[in-house]
Amino acid sequence: MKFKISQKEFYEGIQIVQRAVSNKNTLPILSGILIKVEDTRLKLVATDLEIGIECYINAEIISKGELVLPASHLSNVIRELPSMTVMVQCDLQNKSAEILCGHSQFTINGFSADDFPILPKIEDGTHLSINQPLFKEIVEQVKIATSTDETQPFLNGALLRIVDNQLKMGSTNSYRLAHREAIIETGIDEKLEVIIPNKTLDEMARLLNDDQEATVNLQFTNNQILFDLENITIISRLIEGRFPNYEPVIPKNSNTFIKLNRKELLQAVKRVSLIAAANSNIIRTTVTNGQMILESANSEIGQAHEELDIDMEGSGVEISFNAGYLLDGLKILDTDDVQLCFSGKFSPFILRPTNEINYTYVVSPLRS
Amino acid sequence: MKFKISQKEFYEGIQIVQRAVSNKNTLPILSGILIKVEDTRLKLVATDLEIGIECYINAEIISKGELVLPASHLSNVIRELPSMTVMVQCDLQNKSAEILCGHSQFTINGFSADDFPILPKIEDGTHLSINQPLFKEIVEQVKIATSTDETQPFLNGALLRIVDNQLKMGSTNSYRLAHREAIIETGIDEKLEVIIPNKTLDEMARLLNDDQEATVNLQFTNNQILFDLENITIISRLIEGRFPNYEPVIPKNSNTFIKLNRKELLQAVKRVSLIAAANSNIIRTTVTNGQMILESANSEIGQAHEELDIDMEGSGVEISFNAGYLLDGLKILDTDDVQLCFSGKFSPFILRPTNEINYTYVVSPLRS
Repeated sequence: MKFKISQKEFYEGIQIVQRAVSNKNTLPILSGILIKVEDTRLKLVATDLEIGIECYINAEIISKGELVLPASHLSNVIRELPSMTVMVQCDLQNKSAEILCGHSQFTINGFSADDFPILPKIEDGTHLSINQPLFKEIVEQVKIATSTDETQPFLNGALLRIVDNQLKMGSTNSYRLAHREAIIETGIDEKLEVIIPNKTLDEMARLLNDDQEATVNLQFTNNQILFDLENITIISRLIEGRFPNYEPVIPKNSNTFIKLNRKELLQAVKRVSLIAAANSNIIRTTVTNGQMILESANSEIGQAHEELDIDMEGSGVEISFNAGYLLDGLKILDTDDVQLCFSGKFSPFILRPTNEINYTYVVSPLRS
Repeated sequence: MKFKISQKEFYEGIQIVQRAVSNKNTLPILSGILIKVEDTRLKLVATDLEIGIECYINAEIISKGELVLPASHLSNVIRELPSMTVMVQCDLQNKSAEILCGHSQFTINGFSADDFPILPKIEDGTHLSINQPLFKEIVEQVKIATSTDETQPFLNGALLRIVDNQLKMGSTNSYRLAHREAIIETGIDEKLEVIIPNKTLDEMARLLNDDQEATVNLQFTNNQILFDLENITIISRLIEGRFPNYEPVIPKNSNTFIKLNRKELLQAVKRVSLIAAANSNIIRTTVTNGQMILESANSEIGQAHEELDIDMEGSGVEISFNAGYLLDGLKILDTDDVQLCFSGKFSPFILRPTNEINYTYVVSPLRS
């Protein structure tokens, strides 16, 4: 097993798969990356048994074979090498790899490829193709509201549904929720409903690209999902359990509609939360004609008071909520203006970008 | 007490003094910054009783007075305000400050200025003026070798000496040492010898600037040192005790002299230390005619071997040392080439920039 590869491409490939490497010290081999030298290219694989990432890179193949090398040592060494051609020559008997580059020579001890878990294959299952930048936006907008509370594992991810040629994706931690819809050509007859784990959402957001021409192919079974990007495959288990029917929580009949500059609101909420941090991050908002007031007070630290100019329709309202939840929603959007829709002091309120009716972010009020 | 000030200048001033704020929770008032409004300008002061930093900023003064505000809240609020004029109005009775900027309004609770410690004044003592960029370079080159071992408090800083119109500064942690000399016009007759604490060296390196025209004025007594930069004053206690006479440790008669590219050596040492990290960072160097070899091996992880082209005079040598110590010295220099002078397997070796005979960095060998 022997190949030549550019330092830059090798390091990029390692970075793509490395995030799937196990952090836990259960099976030592899971701390490694499988390097499989095929006819004309190199395949890198890493998995923690929950998620697996495979990546193909072009290389000059001298002889075939496969070996597992510890991810952190491999990654550190390749990162620090000069930007030149790297030659890797493996001694499969001794399970070690010799890495030559310029005047540098490393030997890294590894594991036999025979002991590396084989990633599950999805032979049948449902297929779906989506534009990559669109799916990246959907994943980013939805993953912000997921729960990390391990006592409710079915909330530790996002629900993806296909209903009548519509893709619907949503998440909630019980205090806030994110919901996104997109009309796509699915060609899927049956109703489809899966929960994608948080870690997989993070990797998707990282690996999906912004190229308008790029497509991602999804393949589902009952307990696995596969994402096929060009040269990269991600396979992940799905979360079992029943996701709550969150759509009725989204208020249908609001009676206060305001429009304001997103960045100004973001900065004002950030400032008020400097004081609110000492009060579990609770801030109070008062919406009156043409003005939104944000406030927080702590008897030890002091007080914050912010005034914002708004466009307003409907009645005034006063409501308290967790500043961090609103901040997350404001940060993920990129529009100049946003809309907030209130339905009274004790009802959840909606945050929406002004140009996009297909995204809804909902924050529950706090009784303060 | 009331003044107007630009958000940017106020935040810069806070950042200058904030590093002197106490991290320990001893006296609550030491977590604050004293804001003293004088006739035409503002004075900010912070101290942890070991080091004190004062800074003057221009402001539009409306009325005089002084108050102490908690450094972290003040700094967070001013940082997040828009880049506009900030108005600060203090209620000295209630020991609170109202901060107004754009549509933002904050009240921050503070402490009475009467309880804030007065920084010691140095009336007499020895004076000395040095070019700021030169002194910055000296401090940066010397502070890398200081010790943080609390059992040897006299090594937790750098020795500054004035001997015959020469400034000499040095530091050591017993395993490596840094020594810098500079010829300056001191006008000082007596011999002067003080130990400046680590934290003060860090603040000096941060606050001294690169303006070739700038001067720093130093003032010494037996137990205090004062640095006077334009608009900024740093006053620090000195470390008591006798600094070891380290100069005899610097080898006088080396028998191997090599010259090589600094960045190439830095990168090679960095790579070898990826393997050496598992061996207390020990690497082995073999210098033969025209070549320097760096090596490390660990039975579990693997091996590293680097070859470097060198200009060489004298005999070959083989020596083992802590890679981190050499890295620190290589990082602080900015020359293209460096010189290494060896005096045998068991003697300390010297690192020097090729253009500067006044800086000497010495690393002790390890018997491996």
